[in-house]
Amino acid sequence: MLTPNSSNLARASVPPASRFLDLVADKLAATEEVFLEHLQSDVPFITNTGEYIFSGGGKRFRPAMLLLSAKLLDRDSDEEVTYAAVVELIHTATLIHDDIIDHAKLRRGQTTANQLWGNSLTVLLGDWLYTTSMKMALSHDNLEVIRRLCDATLRMTEGELLSQQRLGSPDLGVEEYFSIIERKTAHLFAASCSIPSLMSPKKPAAGAALERYGRALGICFQLVDDLLDFTARESEIGKPVLSDLTEGKLTLPLILLLPRLNAKRRGLIETVLEDGSFDRVAQEEILDLVQSEGTIAQVQEMAEGYAEEARSTLEIFSACGAREAMEFAPEFVLQRRS
Amino acid sequence: MLTPNSSNLARASVPPASRFLDLVADKLAATEEVFLEHLQSDVPFITNTGEYIFSGGGKRFRPAMLLLSAKLLDRDSDEEVTYAAVVELIHTATLIHDDIIDHAKLRRGQTTANQLWGNSLTVLLGDWLYTTSMKMALSHDNLEVIRRLCDATLRMTEGELLSQQRLGSPDLGVEEYFSIIERKTAHLFAASCSIPSLMSPKKPAAGAALERYGRALGICFQLVDDLLDFTARESEIGKPVLSDLTEGKLTLPLILLLPRLNAKRRGLIETVLEDGSFDRVAQEEILDLVQSEGTIAQVQEMAEGYAEEARSTLEIFSACGAREAMEFAPEFVLQRRS
Repeated sequence: MLTPNSSNLARASVPPASRFLDLVADKLAATEEVFLEHLQSDVPFITNTGEYIFSGGGKRFRPAMLLLSAKLLDRDSDEEVTYAAVVELIHTATLIHDDIIDHAKLRRGQTTANQLWGNSLTVLLGDWLYTTSMKMALSHDNLEVIRRLCDATLRMTEGELLSQQRLGSPDLGVEEYFSIIERKTAHLFAASCSIPSLMSPKKPAAGAALERYGRALGICFQLVDDLLDFTARESEIGKPVLSDLTEGKLTLPLILLLPRLNAKRRGLIETVLEDGSFDRVAQEEILDLVQSEGTIAQVQEMAEGYAEEARSTLEIFSACGAREAMEFAPEFVLQRRS
Repeated sequence: MLTPNSSNLARASVPPASRFLDLVADKLAATEEVFLEHLQSDVPFITNTGEYIFSGGGKRFRPAMLLLSAKLLDRDSDEEVTYAAVVELIHTATLIHDDIIDHAKLRRGQTTANQLWGNSLTVLLGDWLYTTSMKMALSHDNLEVIRRLCDATLRMTEGELLSQQRLGSPDLGVEEYFSIIERKTAHLFAASCSIPSLMSPKKPAAGAALERYGRALGICFQLVDDLLDFTARESEIGKPVLSDLTEGKLTLPLILLLPRLNAKRRGLIETVLEDGSFDRVAQEEILDLVQSEGTIAQVQEMAEGYAEEARSTLEIFSACGAREAMEFAPEFVLQRRS
């Protein structure tokens, strides 16, 4: 079993971030080909906008984790490449609709689809990508995989719905926050990591472990994402700092902070939530508050806990390159600045 | 074979509209149960809004046609009831997103979802319904049916995209109009009618005929829909008359009319398209134009042609109650006032 010490040791010996995906580099490249192929449509708008969106990058983290899980289970076929493309497509469709809802102007440093083409065409583009992802997933005749993908998509939509309904509320609780990020982020990570276990021959025990791995990694990923909104620079994350707050979204560092503040200091946060801007409160005042009360560090520790949980689920697998890369993935998430 | 005369005879002897669905009344009732069951979610917003939307009625015409086709092919199982619910759910999800895009306030005489809950929650509600429809369709393990449903959904999204891109253009041509309504309407009708042929044991020859039947019925349905925007009263269609035009959508009666008008009279239509309102041109001026040039009657004749085409595809089937009801369906479409 990985003790905290052996975990620290493992952390010290991991390959550099740029190399941990070497094992699946060829399959990740094949995934990009699959995108381009499936974005062809006799409606030119779809092909053009699709190419713009997919050329805009993105970390391809979900496809990478799916492909590493497949490697861990000794899969080697086109099937996992298709599913890798599918999970990225679902993720992208979600972002496209979320950006409409959030009136977002920038994503990954690139002008958003809604900003370029307006909400109407962008709603439809997202719909087309969702349905295309299902159609792609159908190509290997594996119903169980498609069910898993449908479930993850439903949970993501519900997560965003719950989040939208609580927009601007200063009383979002810790439990509610976790229920939202489980749905919005952790489910698709869990699906990505466990789908290779549903390919033939099925491996249910491995699937259960990989499901737990993906869930913990997904929560870790979201906690870090929420932290970056406080700690990163705009040039790193490709969108304005503290944009969650101006969009009315309370995340864990502030949820933990609010009960510790007196009415006056709490009022600063409530004012930004209410205004959706830093017109009456300076960004620095909010940043000083979260730093001074230590909730950034607290959330960082929680993220590290989930990273450790993810790593520990891999104990049932024999040592191999894929397991090593997957043990490093949580560290990569913790270290990321964008 | 149905000659024009025997067809006229058939029209004279058809059962009244209220009775042509008697054969599938029990299955239509079961379809309603399936909706209610699948709209249950632990997110209260989904259950509540879902119930509002499905209690708001709708003709359930696509489910009815699917169930009649199943009857024609001697199917009798829960499977066709599931697919009947699925096609209505896909149709409903499409309407929900279309209403956002069109800023529609009324649908079937009821306040639209976007009007009640805002665009953000309504985009997500549509997404949830789309994915739920796929999940429901998966429950009978028939991949070919799900592929057919995905294809129809993609075509509908593309049709709406093409339509949106040409919004406000006074130069939409007849061919382009048909390419849009094929995608927006005819594909889902064709899928609804042919899906029972994909159930076990498959019946490809019957499927090809039913596909043609559904397509012709769908085009007839859309032509009538477009006519009603000119000829019906608001109380009948549950939304304002001439709303297509104020939304910037040219439909066939105006597409056929425009090349026949001099610049001054063409200018009246272009002004409404540009303004999106009847601020500078009276509704009556537009209605007088289309009536005077006879394009309403011309489109009515085209709709009757597609109705006849639909009926003629049924010749390969033995006489039975289901065939009789399906022969009447195009007549029902032609007669509808809402």
